[in-house]
Amino acid sequence: MTLQMDRAALTAFLLRDFGQVAADFAVERADTAGVALRLIAAERHLRPGGTVSGPAMFALADVAMYLAILSRIGPVALAVTTNCAIDFMRKPAAGRDLRAEARVLKLGRVLAVGDVLIFSDGEEAPVARAGLTYSIPPR
Amino acid sequence: MTLQMDRAALTAFLLRDFGQVAADFAVERADTAGVALRLIAAERHLRPGGTVSGPAMFALADVAMYLAILSRIGPVALAVTTNCAIDFMRKPAAGRDLRAEARVLKLGRVLAVGDVLIFSDGEEAPVARAGLTYSIPPR
Amino acid sequence: MTLQMDRAALTAFLLRDFGQVAADFAVERADTAGVALRLIAAERHLRPGGTVSGPAMFALADVAMYLAILSRIGPVALAVTTNCAIDFMRKPAAGRDLRAEARVLKLGRVLAVGDVLIFSDGEEAPVARAGLTYSIPPR
Amino acid sequence: MTLQMDRAALTAFLLRDFGQVAADFAVERADTAGVALRLIAAERHLRPGGTVSGPAMFALADVAMYLAILSRIGPVALAVTTNCAIDFMRKPAAGRDLRAEARVLKLGRVLAVGDVLIFSDGEEAPVARAGLTYSIPPR
Repeated sequence: MTLQMDRAALTAFLLRDFGQVAADFAVERADTAGVALRLIAAERHLRPGGTVSGPAMFALADVAMYLAILSRIGPVALAVTTNCAIDFMRKPAAGRDLRAEARVLKLGRVLAVGDVLIFSDGEEAPVARAGLTYSIPPR
Repeated sequence: MTLQMDRAALTAFLLRDFGQVAADFAVERADTAGVALRLIAAERHLRPGGTVSGPAMFALADVAMYLAILSRIGPVALAVTTNCAIDFMRKPAAGRDLRAEARVLKLGRVLAVGDVLIFSDGEEAPVARAGLTYSIPPR
Repeated sequence: MTLQMDRAALTAFLLRDFGQVAADFAVERADTAGVALRLIAAERHLRPGGTVSGPAMFALADVAMYLAILSRIGPVALAVTTNCAIDFMRKPAAGRDLRAEARVLKLGRVLAVGDVLIFSDGEEAPVARAGLTYSIPPR
Repeated sequence: MTLQMDRAALTAFLLRDFGQVAADFAVERADTAGVALRLIAAERHLRPGGTVSGPAMFALADVAMYLAILSRIGPVALAVTTNCAIDFMRKPAAGRDLRAEARVLKLGRVLAVGDVLIFSDGEEAPVARAGLTYSIPPR
């Protein structure tokens, strides 16, 4: 397996096609094992108490998986999330960035499936896990 | 079954405890069948093309179910989402609010389970569906 | 919307293509609202204590949704389940059949999505709910 | 972390408390990384074509996670599955056993969460993945 997009290419893609949210994320790694993506925690992601909100964790899982798929098939926009099952397991540490580790488990003709683990930065126990399916447009 | 919180009480709760996002939502109905919640679509919810983003739909489902549970047990904060499985089925109509219909299917001692259908305002075919589980703190 | 297969046609399909499990199920209704399917509880479906097992409930949800899709598109075999998210909410009543109510929420070109509620026969509170996605083969 | 039950103890537990299905499964490994469980494919697990059925894969994921939790907390029966989200990604190889790799991601006071990958014996690409939640009875 060869990567179609590396860390630099994914970062450029985020900036160009997802300008609205690009400042929230930093691509930390993209290799054959998957993609690591950081959510740079800001006021707008937090719940009272200073922990990252559920929707912000969902967004992190969703973008991490999207980039992991693109790293394998290239910048074919228009892949869309069809399903996400997410488990919230622990309260994230207050005031800390989150890190997502996404891996692609299946890359089919019409569907891609993968999963994501989310961690508070510097912690070992995951705060959330998600399984996601993307629909890939006909090429 | 009697409701512990009606539409006015839920609206007041949203404003007081979720000030950060309260302006995004309007409680349209709260009765024994469940809760209807509107997402007032604004620039920050939209993807390129003008359709509401996945994270914004997730947030709508999550808040709608939270309010449906509170309508039954009263304003015991601290109920937390433990799981959400969401299917994105259709592209929302551009520039339109979304409406969520949430119902509680089980209200147990420690877990509450329900589901949500999401519609583009004025449309009959749902754009998304979700099943959610909440953990309820010991009283 | 017109149905491609009614209750009799679905029953015949089950017998012919799913002979191995056809005796477990009875199609009770098939109309534009969806399909109602009964699991005829037998020893092999039960856990110690006499309640229907999780895998038997999963099978009921899966077959009910499959038949609901076929009722709309006709007997195109080869549709396959790609995803199922199931919540087990209550212990089924001992020694009782289960009834599933399946409805199709989306019938697309390549994916069909729906949900299922499962009840102990004669009870009003659901014992389980599931959301399922099927991949539909190109025609 | 120390294991409360090893491979031999889990095997004995299966035989005693799940006599009905014990012959379907073989515990291959139980350590701090999780549990590996084999489904010994038999006629009753197969779909036409000779591949293992969805309900049999669900049962494998469910039992594998159950044993992984017991390996950590000991033989406290009564833990029950509350949720399972399963993705079916590839057709299993015909006439082949399946192997599940289950890991516990969270072991809380009332809930345990983990995930499972399922492989056709001898293959590297997973045929299914699942996330599961168990409710743990008060001790």
